[in-house]
Amino acid sequence: MHRGQVSNAVIRRMPKYYRCLNELAKDGVTKISSRTLAEYMGLTASQIRQDFNCFGGFGQQGYGYNVNTLMTEIASILGVEKLHKAVMIGVGNIGHALLHNFNFAKCGFEIVCAFDLGEDMIGNKIEGVPVLHPDDLEKFAEENPFDIAILALPKKAAPEMSDRLVNLGIKGIWNFVNVDLKRRHPNIVIEDVHFADSLMTLCYGISE
Amino acid sequence: MHRGQVSNAVIRRMPKYYRCLNELAKDGVTKISSRTLAEYMGLTASQIRQDFNCFGGFGQQGYGYNVNTLMTEIASILGVEKLHKAVMIGVGNIGHALLHNFNFAKCGFEIVCAFDLGEDMIGNKIEGVPVLHPDDLEKFAEENPFDIAILALPKKAAPEMSDRLVNLGIKGIWNFVNVDLKRRHPNIVIEDVHFADSLMTLCYGISE
Repeated sequence: MHRGQVSNAVIRRMPKYYRCLNELAKDGVTKISSRTLAEYMGLTASQIRQDFNCFGGFGQQGYGYNVNTLMTEIASILGVEKLHKAVMIGVGNIGHALLHNFNFAKCGFEIVCAFDLGEDMIGNKIEGVPVLHPDDLEKFAEENPFDIAILALPKKAAPEMSDRLVNLGIKGIWNFVNVDLKRRHPNIVIEDVHFADSLMTLCYGISE
Repeated sequence: MHRGQVSNAVIRRMPKYYRCLNELAKDGVTKISSRTLAEYMGLTASQIRQDFNCFGGFGQQGYGYNVNTLMTEIASILGVEKLHKAVMIGVGNIGHALLHNFNFAKCGFEIVCAFDLGEDMIGNKIEGVPVLHPDDLEKFAEENPFDIAILALPKKAAPEMSDRLVNLGIKGIWNFVNVDLKRRHPNIVIEDVHFADSLMTLCYGISE
């Protein structure tokens, strides 16, 4: 199946498979049946086989999957072994939380620079990442091309900043701002982080 | 259909419907066909009708959906009109970001108290939310029952704290810590926030 034909739901399950397989590998599991993996993932075995068939299928039915091979295949599908370059726009609470605690390399990214108006940060480094003034974005990009931007700045500044980033030719935005960028930039990949969707799902769960 | 029979994928789409309908209502849209809503959501019209049928279906086929009615129905299914009580455990970067910027009420929650070891915070309020020492959790809970906890504390402290919270009878945990609480507490609702899943999905998108 061509990548473009794979449904969004299947794509969104791929990082979860990758996470589960990592945990299984850590626990010393080397081989797993689709049934056991299904239980672990909260899916059915048939759904798992269907998901994997979208990418040509991995392993032979009846023999189980090799955990490490499967992990490598999925890492390659996701592209997380590539270390794409990213910049962070806005280093507030969320930005700090990500820089200090989040393992970007594991997700295929390296943060090459951060941009913020805070004079106490400009010129310094946070976890090894240099912080520049947003006015220097275009100049930085000339000499240091990057693939995506992490948008974590105040809402009112987000649309104009997204335009500048798209003009620089970025491929995607990891968007922490509650603003609709998909309609503004239909030709680049926008991945919104919607805390509210997650909390409402919890709300449903406890309302039962 | 009984709530327990509704698939996880359908449940996870409900907050997205709610968000889309809110945006449509803001734009002055009062009525919408399943086809238009489908385009807006990036789904098919048949998938939308199937989703809604899980909850008895809303509106009559061929007549379109009333945006406000549909919004109210979904709010009621999600339980977001109830204002459940929540406590926040750990007020670091993520905690501050949520307290300052996140609209909890819109998701059906009121933060009644936060707990942190930081002496500069204890006894003060952040956005109207009092901060207490974690040692005072059980005493606070005696007089102020709450439904869920937002877990945003250091990883090593998370398992023990989750045990204490579950002992207090909470129904759910909104988990920002990279630790598996589902196997530890199979009887309560755990909603993990996995930043990595989101970033890996973006990684896939730009790798095409």
